[in-house]
Amino acid sequence: MTTHLPLGDRRDAPFYGKDIISVRQFGLDDLEYVFGVAREMREIVTRIGTIDLLKGKILANIFYEPSTRTSSSFTAAMERLGGSVIPINEVRYSSVSKGESLPDTVRTLERYADVIVLRHPDVGASAVAAKYASKPIINAGDGVGEHPTQALLDLFTIIAELDQVNGLTVTMVGDLKYGRTVHSLSRLLSLFDIRLNLVSPPILAMPEEILTELATAGTPVTVADTLDGVIATTDVLYVTRVQKERFDQESAYESVKDAFVISPATLQKAKRRMIVMHPLPRVTEITMEVDDDPRAAYFRQMEYGMYVRMALLAMVLGKA
Amino acid sequence: MTTHLPLGDRRDAPFYGKDIISVRQFGLDDLEYVFGVAREMREIVTRIGTIDLLKGKILANIFYEPSTRTSSSFTAAMERLGGSVIPINEVRYSSVSKGESLPDTVRTLERYADVIVLRHPDVGASAVAAKYASKPIINAGDGVGEHPTQALLDLFTIIAELDQVNGLTVTMVGDLKYGRTVHSLSRLLSLFDIRLNLVSPPILAMPEEILTELATAGTPVTVADTLDGVIATTDVLYVTRVQKERFDQESAYESVKDAFVISPATLQKAKRRMIVMHPLPRVTEITMEVDDDPRAAYFRQMEYGMYVRMALLAMVLGKA
Amino acid sequence: MTTHLPLGDRRDAPFYGKDIISVRQFGLDDLEYVFGVAREMREIVTRIGTIDLLKGKILANIFYEPSTRTSSSFTAAMERLGGSVIPINEVRYSSVSKGESLPDTVRTLERYADVIVLRHPDVGASAVAAKYASKPIINAGDGVGEHPTQALLDLFTIIAELDQVNGLTVTMVGDLKYGRTVHSLSRLLSLFDIRLNLVSPPILAMPEEILTELATAGTPVTVADTLDGVIATTDVLYVTRVQKERFDQESAYESVKDAFVISPATLQKAKRRMIVMHPLPRVTEITMEVDDDPRAAYFRQMEYGMYVRMALLAMVLGKA
Repeated sequence: MTTHLPLGDRRDAPFYGKDIISVRQFGLDDLEYVFGVAREMREIVTRIGTIDLLKGKILANIFYEPSTRTSSSFTAAMERLGGSVIPINEVRYSSVSKGESLPDTVRTLERYADVIVLRHPDVGASAVAAKYASKPIINAGDGVGEHPTQALLDLFTIIAELDQVNGLTVTMVGDLKYGRTVHSLSRLLSLFDIRLNLVSPPILAMPEEILTELATAGTPVTVADTLDGVIATTDVLYVTRVQKERFDQESAYESVKDAFVISPATLQKAKRRMIVMHPLPRVTEITMEVDDDPRAAYFRQMEYGMYVRMALLAMVLGKA
Repeated sequence: MTTHLPLGDRRDAPFYGKDIISVRQFGLDDLEYVFGVAREMREIVTRIGTIDLLKGKILANIFYEPSTRTSSSFTAAMERLGGSVIPINEVRYSSVSKGESLPDTVRTLERYADVIVLRHPDVGASAVAAKYASKPIINAGDGVGEHPTQALLDLFTIIAELDQVNGLTVTMVGDLKYGRTVHSLSRLLSLFDIRLNLVSPPILAMPEEILTELATAGTPVTVADTLDGVIATTDVLYVTRVQKERFDQESAYESVKDAFVISPATLQKAKRRMIVMHPLPRVTEITMEVDDDPRAAYFRQMEYGMYVRMALLAMVLGKA
Repeated sequence: MTTHLPLGDRRDAPFYGKDIISVRQFGLDDLEYVFGVAREMREIVTRIGTIDLLKGKILANIFYEPSTRTSSSFTAAMERLGGSVIPINEVRYSSVSKGESLPDTVRTLERYADVIVLRHPDVGASAVAAKYASKPIINAGDGVGEHPTQALLDLFTIIAELDQVNGLTVTMVGDLKYGRTVHSLSRLLSLFDIRLNLVSPPILAMPEEILTELATAGTPVTVADTLDGVIATTDVLYVTRVQKERFDQESAYESVKDAFVISPATLQKAKRRMIVMHPLPRVTEITMEVDDDPRAAYFRQMEYGMYVRMALLAMVLGKA
């Protein structure tokens, strides 16, 4: 995007007028800044519910594919900041289906709105949108590409729940091959001094590309195909879903699936102070009995997501 | 739901933090309270349009099946109270269709919102949601189960139009078997001193269960298969649609359908001061010529619905 | 619609309480008034983003067929005026598909809202809605009928970009037969002292009806099937799409299509001060290389549309 400086905004604020496309944009200082603002947002929401920081600002919330969770989170974030939302969920039926290009769609909608949140099925769509738009674009997931606000909220959850990241042992379990969530989070975690356990069936292992990045960053990594050896020392258990469709044979799926289901029995072996996270939606990979365990952080994780998105919206609009 | 007490809300207000699941929750005192607040809402909207009573509050308006009327009514109610809405109409396409359970969906959305309105095709869905949620749930219809805000708005319409309920003769006409509207309204009316006429084809008669409840309450009931004998003494004519699909043979439908169509001729035999109600949508069961009759109350009924929903939203959020 | 006069509104303001159904409602004085208000709206948005002129007012944005652009434009217009929106995009799935008539739908929704914007596939739908509604109806396109706010924004774009209309040469190119946009704009332009060039393949020529109206108004018209002779003197080049489906034979389409594609080469022959307009969505009829030319006004045109819709909303609600 090009610079855009309406009267009264703070030109010197970090991220003012910027696009949020990838976690690679965020260094340690940036993360500290984002999370500082997110903590203030949490304080405001907890104490008074909303604030009129973005009163008069409009968010175009463009979802080319449905995602109730992410869409609602951004809507709530904008509304809790006193701003308004143009919800655009039905793009499949509308001008887009008449053949309009993504650059034209964003250049039209930025004439109405002050900031654009974009969910798109194609890798790189957000970068394309940002190239053509003069208002800030926030990537809300572009296919198997990135979903930076998810990774930021995951990291903020860890900090908000366990006070720090350095020194922690993080265990990722489930489908580590196709989950963009664990890829982006791994990249962010490699900025810190942590230990990483990667637990998956061999055919759903973490891609080499990410393992190389982790090695380059000097992050100690342990690969395993069961939680048994690592659950006792885990501070953060990040669970993702193992989908039957990923396996060629149903027998292969049946033989491994139980090893990746988190139940109260799993947590009996875990620390008293640790957290279980999940990007949701959850199906059977965490049993509902776990929900009542105070270590189950996945619904609180949703709330942290709203604070992080409030922070990002305020930041790119120069109000944080 | 469990108790939830943010700073500044009135803990002692009736219905504060409560779920609205069934008309059975409402005794005479409760109805008086709800309608008192609804009257204030009507006053406010008539005089100044809106009020900032729920400024900073967010409603998650979750519709698993479409209902423009009910969804729009709750949206307008929240907006006229200064609050914001997260519209969730497309659940069929989204995380829910990825297999997420209702408890997980409400536990996610309550992290963003302050109150949840739920429309769901399954009986008991609202009770399930309320069990898992810690924020108030308002049932906006759960299948053939309940639609409590519809029953409350029906009763409020009678009071607003005719000043009182006691002493009235209410005639329900049409499909009394499958219409949850007439079932819930019957239950509420049985709290008052009224006479009830039930007019339907025999195969669409009021279910035994409801008749038993009315008998237990001591409500005098007259069953008929034509309006002829009852229209002259009717104060409230509550019309529902007789659907062709309910009949095994088209001839059976054709032989009865005209007996349940309300036309100017029908109203010629009615009192000068009486009202015609209908939950809408109306198809052919009331002719359009009736619309201009001042006794036709069904569009005003929609407006009363907004006031009742404003009252309920303000009440469960502790602001009434 | 019947008169509707809530307290505090200006009864004497032009267009107060009126419906906006057709461009034929607008004389020169009316246009001057609308554009004067639209200019103020532009000033407000440019300087402070929003204004609370319609705080407490609710727009029911009813789209029987999808149109992201028009729907978003009205939503943004209402939000920038401090008002709220009830978005009704899914009418195909809802009460309407249960057989409810348009008069019933608008008489229900006007009980919740203060103004209704209606997009409908049938010609005359807005006039029907206005007949039954007591709140203002704004036509956002009724089939091949009218789309008056599009024509108004087109004209406002010309004035905002070129300071005046009188004396200009306007060239319309592409499909002049089926495009309601060029028909409505022609009617508005015929109120001014302009020259009109109509460039299209013969089978997509401007209908006789419009040509007769232009002749009656005394507007000099030149018909051509290529831009060559007219581009050099053109002040406003209004481009519409030539759709392959309009031709019986693909060979007929292939033989003409390139004549109606606007590229940098086309603009080399044009004045330095002129503008290229398009109602969007654009597919291939203007090449993307043109977008960077300062004469390409089609994205700015979208923004002018928001100002015109802000003006109309404020006017019919008596606040302008």
